[in-house]
Amino acid sequence: MNLIGSSSQQERNVPSLVSTREMLSARYRSVRRMSETLGQSLTPDDYGLQAMPDVSPAKWHLAHTSWFFETFLLNAFLPDYHRFHPQYEYLFNSYYQQVGAPFPRAQRALLSRPSTEEIFRYRAQVDAAMTSLFSSVTEVQWPEVAARILLGCHHEQQHQELFLTDIKYNFSVNPLKPAYRADLRLPEPGASTTLRWIEQPGGVQEIGHDGGDFSFDNEGPRHRVLQKSYALASRLITNAEYLEFIEAGGYRQAQHWLADGWRVAAEQAWQAPLYWEKIDGSWQLFTLAGMRPLNPTEPVCHVSFYEADAYARWAGKRLPTEDEWETLARGETLRGNLRDSGYLHPIPAQAQTNPTQFFGDVWEWTRSSYAPYPGYRPNPGALGEYNGKFMVNQLVLRGGSCVTSADHIRASYRNFFYPADRWQFSGIRLADDR
Amino acid sequence: MNLIGSSSQQERNVPSLVSTREMLSARYRSVRRMSETLGQSLTPDDYGLQAMPDVSPAKWHLAHTSWFFETFLLNAFLPDYHRFHPQYEYLFNSYYQQVGAPFPRAQRALLSRPSTEEIFRYRAQVDAAMTSLFSSVTEVQWPEVAARILLGCHHEQQHQELFLTDIKYNFSVNPLKPAYRADLRLPEPGASTTLRWIEQPGGVQEIGHDGGDFSFDNEGPRHRVLQKSYALASRLITNAEYLEFIEAGGYRQAQHWLADGWRVAAEQAWQAPLYWEKIDGSWQLFTLAGMRPLNPTEPVCHVSFYEADAYARWAGKRLPTEDEWETLARGETLRGNLRDSGYLHPIPAQAQTNPTQFFGDVWEWTRSSYAPYPGYRPNPGALGEYNGKFMVNQLVLRGGSCVTSADHIRASYRNFFYPADRWQFSGIRLADDR
Amino acid sequence: MNLIGSSSQQERNVPSLVSTREMLSARYRSVRRMSETLGQSLTPDDYGLQAMPDVSPAKWHLAHTSWFFETFLLNAFLPDYHRFHPQYEYLFNSYYQQVGAPFPRAQRALLSRPSTEEIFRYRAQVDAAMTSLFSSVTEVQWPEVAARILLGCHHEQQHQELFLTDIKYNFSVNPLKPAYRADLRLPEPGASTTLRWIEQPGGVQEIGHDGGDFSFDNEGPRHRVLQKSYALASRLITNAEYLEFIEAGGYRQAQHWLADGWRVAAEQAWQAPLYWEKIDGSWQLFTLAGMRPLNPTEPVCHVSFYEADAYARWAGKRLPTEDEWETLARGETLRGNLRDSGYLHPIPAQAQTNPTQFFGDVWEWTRSSYAPYPGYRPNPGALGEYNGKFMVNQLVLRGGSCVTSADHIRASYRNFFYPADRWQFSGIRLADDR
Amino acid sequence: MNLIGSSSQQERNVPSLVSTREMLSARYRSVRRMSETLGQSLTPDDYGLQAMPDVSPAKWHLAHTSWFFETFLLNAFLPDYHRFHPQYEYLFNSYYQQVGAPFPRAQRALLSRPSTEEIFRYRAQVDAAMTSLFSSVTEVQWPEVAARILLGCHHEQQHQELFLTDIKYNFSVNPLKPAYRADLRLPEPGASTTLRWIEQPGGVQEIGHDGGDFSFDNEGPRHRVLQKSYALASRLITNAEYLEFIEAGGYRQAQHWLADGWRVAAEQAWQAPLYWEKIDGSWQLFTLAGMRPLNPTEPVCHVSFYEADAYARWAGKRLPTEDEWETLARGETLRGNLRDSGYLHPIPAQAQTNPTQFFGDVWEWTRSSYAPYPGYRPNPGALGEYNGKFMVNQLVLRGGSCVTSADHIRASYRNFFYPADRWQFSGIRLADDR
Repeated sequence: MNLIGSSSQQERNVPSLVSTREMLSARYRSVRRMSETLGQSLTPDDYGLQAMPDVSPAKWHLAHTSWFFETFLLNAFLPDYHRFHPQYEYLFNSYYQQVGAPFPRAQRALLSRPSTEEIFRYRAQVDAAMTSLFSSVTEVQWPEVAARILLGCHHEQQHQELFLTDIKYNFSVNPLKPAYRADLRLPEPGASTTLRWIEQPGGVQEIGHDGGDFSFDNEGPRHRVLQKSYALASRLITNAEYLEFIEAGGYRQAQHWLADGWRVAAEQAWQAPLYWEKIDGSWQLFTLAGMRPLNPTEPVCHVSFYEADAYARWAGKRLPTEDEWETLARGETLRGNLRDSGYLHPIPAQAQTNPTQFFGDVWEWTRSSYAPYPGYRPNPGALGEYNGKFMVNQLVLRGGSCVTSADHIRASYRNFFYPADRWQFSGIRLADDR
Repeated sequence: MNLIGSSSQQERNVPSLVSTREMLSARYRSVRRMSETLGQSLTPDDYGLQAMPDVSPAKWHLAHTSWFFETFLLNAFLPDYHRFHPQYEYLFNSYYQQVGAPFPRAQRALLSRPSTEEIFRYRAQVDAAMTSLFSSVTEVQWPEVAARILLGCHHEQQHQELFLTDIKYNFSVNPLKPAYRADLRLPEPGASTTLRWIEQPGGVQEIGHDGGDFSFDNEGPRHRVLQKSYALASRLITNAEYLEFIEAGGYRQAQHWLADGWRVAAEQAWQAPLYWEKIDGSWQLFTLAGMRPLNPTEPVCHVSFYEADAYARWAGKRLPTEDEWETLARGETLRGNLRDSGYLHPIPAQAQTNPTQFFGDVWEWTRSSYAPYPGYRPNPGALGEYNGKFMVNQLVLRGGSCVTSADHIRASYRNFFYPADRWQFSGIRLADDR
Repeated sequence: MNLIGSSSQQERNVPSLVSTREMLSARYRSVRRMSETLGQSLTPDDYGLQAMPDVSPAKWHLAHTSWFFETFLLNAFLPDYHRFHPQYEYLFNSYYQQVGAPFPRAQRALLSRPSTEEIFRYRAQVDAAMTSLFSSVTEVQWPEVAARILLGCHHEQQHQELFLTDIKYNFSVNPLKPAYRADLRLPEPGASTTLRWIEQPGGVQEIGHDGGDFSFDNEGPRHRVLQKSYALASRLITNAEYLEFIEAGGYRQAQHWLADGWRVAAEQAWQAPLYWEKIDGSWQLFTLAGMRPLNPTEPVCHVSFYEADAYARWAGKRLPTEDEWETLARGETLRGNLRDSGYLHPIPAQAQTNPTQFFGDVWEWTRSSYAPYPGYRPNPGALGEYNGKFMVNQLVLRGGSCVTSADHIRASYRNFFYPADRWQFSGIRLADDR
Repeated sequence: MNLIGSSSQQERNVPSLVSTREMLSARYRSVRRMSETLGQSLTPDDYGLQAMPDVSPAKWHLAHTSWFFETFLLNAFLPDYHRFHPQYEYLFNSYYQQVGAPFPRAQRALLSRPSTEEIFRYRAQVDAAMTSLFSSVTEVQWPEVAARILLGCHHEQQHQELFLTDIKYNFSVNPLKPAYRADLRLPEPGASTTLRWIEQPGGVQEIGHDGGDFSFDNEGPRHRVLQKSYALASRLITNAEYLEFIEAGGYRQAQHWLADGWRVAAEQAWQAPLYWEKIDGSWQLFTLAGMRPLNPTEPVCHVSFYEADAYARWAGKRLPTEDEWETLARGETLRGNLRDSGYLHPIPAQAQTNPTQFFGDVWEWTRSSYAPYPGYRPNPGALGEYNGKFMVNQLVLRGGSCVTSADHIRASYRNFFYPADRWQFSGIRLADDR
């Protein structure tokens, strides 16, 4: 988060971001309200579900995002603020070691107390105190406070996305295959689009966030990279294209796979993307609306990096690097099938409205390891743990997905997951050398 | 369950058990109501908790006990009965392979659906249908139906006990240490009782259930055993006595321990019974009322067989066999600190009212492996899986505990757990050779 | 080992066992030589193999048996004896915690040093020192020394049996399927024997060792048991009979299995006894002579207790208790297909020479948990760990096998293994109620 | 291996590499002889050791390197060649899936057969057949054959390095702490060298192998990179410097660590580099010569990437990228403490002879993920699995170590290991931004 850096950075950025406290306050309230809206279709029993260590219970997301404001804003800047509960600092810390050893991630489902009802009370107290903070903070403190609030809002939007991603996984293991929202609609099927190649000549490019607006700290420093000529596919790989790989024996042929991927695929008996199920000879997909027949023109989703990479090799291509992706994506309009479209599921490329699918639908695996950009230094203190300490063993994904907020994504945004992860809305765009 | 056996058995037993349908119907309703009463102090979030594979969520206990009546009574004997939901047969089957492969035990917490509310509706439908069955079943079917209903009631009482045992464990892992019921009272401390020895000369004894009333099938056939002279302690081992073992280094001295126990104790870093915690130099115990200071005159509880056996060796004694225990217990009045006393926690031996503690307080580990009595044959069909298939690797415990119903325990009752299990209310009575 | 007990026992037993030092010395030398003979067909590489934690490398058996004499005889009774190496006390201790924490069992294969050659030098030093001990020990010490030497000889014979059992397992995992000795012959196939039932009326029997000769401490005290009428099969179950169980779907039908067994069988994907392999449609068995076609009239071998028990249920029978077995076996002549016959593989029942197969061929699973006999107390000191601390979680097996020394077995001998163990030469004799 | 590529590459490279068959034949014989020489100080028992899945038995290295020549040369190019044994193709395949599923890596220690003696016979047959191949191969085939032989020689040198690395680990777990060679000498301690910074201005650099001599395929294509200004430390970090980190609490302070590293360090209870042991208050190191006191001026060795990275952060610096390293290293003379120096252990920087330590001593962790260079395509067929399929989850190390052959290393050489690996001779060079 480049707002929390040297004071010169703060001076430069903040005014352009939030001209008044009112604007930020409105944003805060809107984001906070959305988190609670997302749970409206859940039963009380659903809030505590955690079907694997990688996911978190819905109630935990609601509590942890409040913990963030309590820890980094209220405790630090609101005089006489009293924590809602003395042990929440421990219980709802995700991974900030400098705040103290966090409660073990894999055991979050064991916290039936505090109850969900109690957590809503916690949220209400935090919101009330934040209102006080907005009105009481001094001008001297405001730049730092504003930067942290903006970070807290984006942080909460990340957890809104995880809320949806996690509830999908949590429901998927239930033999009843419950729908998060049975009322979700899909768009009219449009004309299918042909895969073309977007050509890019070699040369020096600048990538990374330019500092003019909010970004996470891992998006900078902006820097130059030297590229060879390449091309990117004009749209995402579809279910139909991925089915060809399956039917050609792709999951049984070692030569397409990275060695680690081949091992994981064998151990976990992968035969298709996560959430695909063959029922009476037909493929069905588990979605946030329950089980649905596979739509061949939708982008393939819920593949690991290993599967994306194997598909690309099988197809005689490769995955893009993150700088190749960013170079072409930053010229695109920032629109697409994001959470705001309300589908909560990837949709076919729309020749008219969204032919290239750079934003939304699925996070696109790149072949780039998640690593610091040249000159990157994490911020001091616990907030320095936000991004930097994860810069090993993960791969960068770009572009946001159908469960990402439209005002949360941008061309320089770097998401990151382990190569075996599949519960994310993650898919494939091909690249090729020229 | 000896009621489900040859017809001669049925003819003999049933009339003496349930002179009218009304009596059994009243019992049914009373037992069913109790299961729901036990959850009154829980939040909605608590019903789904499962902190280890050995325990089950509270809502699962409520559903499974209803499944039992649906599967073995309503489906079998009530014409035109329709199951509440087609998949509940699978979801709430505990371990009856002949009914179909059950849903995996360790994943019961993943079933946020059906919601607890739905499970209460399930219970209501089963209860209504059972009322129909009581009034519609023919005289010809009645003996078999009555036997199964009685079994179902005892089955549900077993799960009531597990409900309390499991919620204690589930709460114990929460750093907030929630109380199941903070209002639980304890008796006035009475005079401490001295440990004496009850002497029993050698000879032939009959053990096992005599068939005059309800029993589980594993309590029979009644048979003769040849005993050498022995003595049993006149009361349970107390916390103070067990503390001596701890303070003498009992957990660090291999010579007291069975080899398997020594290994498990090292792997799990046992230093004291489960739920003991040393806080600021003083021992505290987690109870169903939350954390409480250790009471030295209470019976020690939540020890594994390995710990019970090591304690006995350290003390120069041994654990009883189950036939030794039964021989002396059957002469005792069936009273004690059972669930009905309302403490839900073991209490000191009461010189006046309960000096020997044979019944209630804690299940008493015996040195007897859980095995079939001579001539035992499991019943035909799925109900034959009730007890017989567990007759290996477990040890017999006797006497019931402070969370056992008073009308559910008897001298011939055989409970059984693995030697490393500690989440049960399990304790120690010493024996010695003579 | 009842020789290491009260002095009255020693006075009674020793003279009848070893009339002169010469006899015991000869026995010692003979047993020690045999251990080394067993390795003559091995390559240097074979001596260090350990294909699972339950088995030990051949060289470890050679070292540990020497450690036994060094620790319990030479160190204790030979003045000025110096240990061969200061760390061998640790490295070659099997499980005697009172001697000090042993080197971890599962890591014995990691000890390439000391080399096998060095271990033979160790053996030579121990043998030389034992010769000194035989000639120097005083009359006062002799009874205790003699008792320990005899125990050490039987201990080494147990390890000779394990040497063969373990090398079979170690070789079995090698795709080359090496033969321990390709030259092993088998007997001429004789007439097949019909399975009859040996009837035994109920009543009181004495079981346990009578103290007239060597026994392990777990074989006593001799005591009376009360039996109901029963019958034992007149011979072991054959491969052909067990094949019927397999072909009838026995491994796929839960109703025959104990719950723990069903779980293990699923986890380990059991479809047949250990060492059975279906090659081109025909069953073959891995033996100490390499792969051989299945002989239908041989006793089935390398089944776990779970499989033996499931077979018995499927056959409508049960396994014997250990006292039933002993009652009938003690009337039999102690002969059979033991190691001395040289087959090192179970052979068909021989109508003329060995119709009942009580001794040799395979260890016979009983349904009796391994537990102390009434009045049993382990010996004081480290030798008390020999047997007593294993008396939980295991089942008793009786009768010795084709790799047991003829002078090492007797009717009261109690072997014990976990119910899932299959690498032993273990098989099935049926019992039935009468 | 860029020799196995387009024919144009072959035409260009081969003549410059091996002007005559004699030269390559001499190299082959010399490399093969060295592999056998390395085992001269081992006992027969040592050849089969495998103390963790990452390491291989010494005998396996001897067999697998022969398998390489048999599979890729003799089978392919020598008419009428018969494999030494039909199952060796399977047994000694390391990871080439296109040759068939390999024998499981973690079970290599279970192959006591073939014996080491047999494997030496295998080597002899392969060597004899290779002599035939050298003399019989046609001119047309020669370029391809020569390229593969050269690859086979470098492959065998890699395994020679692993032979030493693995035997060190295998011996380290033995409480006897055996020396691979107790006679290893160390150099006279020279003057300690001060750590300076080698400055490098930003700009475009070419990295990767230039194709003029042998290289592995992962070293190319040569390509341009854009660098910012930076500096590299003038020598490796020493034990004394690393001890400061330990003593400052570096292993207990999360803020220095990558999140994955912190987790691994906790799980494995790291407190110091591998092979460090504090004995009576003094640090000792296990070496190929046995235990030795820690030398403060030696380079620190056997640290994981996580430790190297944490050290660098603690020191306020960072690790180099691989292109930064290569840019400065290619200007250095290729000399250093490599296997040929005979120390088999890192030594202090020598102001006169080896001040910068770019080559030899320890493999230097870079922060660069092991990934394909732009335009990289693996070779067709099974040899394409040599490097390419490992390009995920690993980090690049540079420079060779004290167990690397001098004629096997170069500035463009890319080694790669997982970030938690410590059994390699791996150490630390710092970098910094400018």
